[in-house]
Amino acid sequence: MRPGVGFTGGILDRADPLRGDPARLAEAFAHPQARGLLLEGLAPVIEGSRLATSPLPQDAQVEDYALLGMDATGPVFVSILKKELPHGAGLTPGVWDLQRTLEPEELAHYGGARSLVDWHARHAYCANCGNSTVAVRAGWSRKCGNCASEHFPRVDPVVIMLAEHEGKVLVGRQARFQPRQYSALAGFLEPGETIEEAVSRELWEEAGVRTTSVRYVMSQPWPFPSSLMMACIAPVESPELTLDTTELEDAMWVDRDAVRAGLAREEGAPFLAPMAVAIAHHLLRAWLEE
Amino acid sequence: MRPGVGFTGGILDRADPLRGDPARLAEAFAHPQARGLLLEGLAPVIEGSRLATSPLPQDAQVEDYALLGMDATGPVFVSILKKELPHGAGLTPGVWDLQRTLEPEELAHYGGARSLVDWHARHAYCANCGNSTVAVRAGWSRKCGNCASEHFPRVDPVVIMLAEHEGKVLVGRQARFQPRQYSALAGFLEPGETIEEAVSRELWEEAGVRTTSVRYVMSQPWPFPSSLMMACIAPVESPELTLDTTELEDAMWVDRDAVRAGLAREEGAPFLAPMAVAIAHHLLRAWLEE
Repeated sequence: MRPGVGFTGGILDRADPLRGDPARLAEAFAHPQARGLLLEGLAPVIEGSRLATSPLPQDAQVEDYALLGMDATGPVFVSILKKELPHGAGLTPGVWDLQRTLEPEELAHYGGARSLVDWHARHAYCANCGNSTVAVRAGWSRKCGNCASEHFPRVDPVVIMLAEHEGKVLVGRQARFQPRQYSALAGFLEPGETIEEAVSRELWEEAGVRTTSVRYVMSQPWPFPSSLMMACIAPVESPELTLDTTELEDAMWVDRDAVRAGLAREEGAPFLAPMAVAIAHHLLRAWLEE
Repeated sequence: MRPGVGFTGGILDRADPLRGDPARLAEAFAHPQARGLLLEGLAPVIEGSRLATSPLPQDAQVEDYALLGMDATGPVFVSILKKELPHGAGLTPGVWDLQRTLEPEELAHYGGARSLVDWHARHAYCANCGNSTVAVRAGWSRKCGNCASEHFPRVDPVVIMLAEHEGKVLVGRQARFQPRQYSALAGFLEPGETIEEAVSRELWEEAGVRTTSVRYVMSQPWPFPSSLMMACIAPVESPELTLDTTELEDAMWVDRDAVRAGLAREEGAPFLAPMAVAIAHHLLRAWLEE
């Protein structure tokens, strides 16, 4: 079976009504089948093709856990006690292999849990007044004891897109990429923009091409630390490129044969496309199949 | 001309390369045509059909301003000095009338500036360590003097959607709505979800309907305080509703005639649709025109 978009297809019931109901939440926490998802820092702990869980410790306190949701067995929690995490939003080593190891829905559950745990670890204080905050709503927000501001987990929208011109699409590479690796261009959406406007701005800034339209294709949560990838295809007026070399080391137009070879990572391919865990892989494939 | 989606269609060049280049930024700040966008708190100051601006004060400091971008006249800044703002993310009074007053691109510029100013006002402290932060990158991020964390303006993705069944769509109302007003259902996307998964979850949670597919239609920045509205249409298996009455006071299936009358706000309409400033208006119209 062809692998799907990584980190998608979660099947946990997020059980939103329990979050705001302390009695029902306590009941779920005391459920005999309640489990805690195990993480090592932010990395997954894997048993076979599934994420490792364990019964909640005897002395566990509900306020130290987030309720990820309910599965067929029972409630699944994850510890949100502050821990020392590496600075920045780096990928977990081995993330590119996770899709080969984990069931798709397990990878999705890991991604959601990772983003939430990371957010708690980096948001113990109130951005509004600087005082400490406590987790509330079953770990789905934090509240300031001083100014009463409530803060919700961040999700940062990112546009990722293929410029398109006369049967070719534009792929680019950053200096940090593996040799021969190219991908779709991408960037954070900013306040005041639509998805379509952000796609046009990023293609202009990074590659100097002007879009004539933008079509949305698919989306993906990307938990490093918590992006929402929104993949689009955008025809452009002219193929002439002016690269922003602070962002891109190189960019090039590739035709269908090159994309096919790149996705298959063939030896003679003009470039190597990202692995199937990344939405860029599926965006290239969607373009091929249009 | 039919009004477009409110807060979209900005034409400022955001001038991203200047943000990270202190020399070029200082040059823009000293430009004889540099202007500051005027706000009263978070409300716009309007002259005719345009936003009021004024020359930058003699003693203005570049670090107290964000660079919104460049227009045909010159650079446009906005003050991000911390001010006391009303708590919460309320709408500015009169926001529903702004689209009748302002040129579309001016409404878009106001929305983006408002979100950014609001974010600075509520994010003076580091969420990671509680110390104070300073604006950097021309007002497009804040940096902690203590732990060096960099924080970027929030944009919170929201799904807004029409469930669809046998030629009808689902509209709902919250208790705070004007009498007879109904709109598309909506909710915040959470870490670990695709747009499509969030649409399905929200429709299940709020109305008890199960989607069979989800199609993206359009997006909008909604600056109260800084959402990205992503509008979708989703066919559902069965029209039977189980409402979450903590979210919705009522919901009902409406056919094309009802939607047409609701958009026109006809006297005998079964419901009143939102004004054209809101994306829900355009989502209903897009469904009609499919």
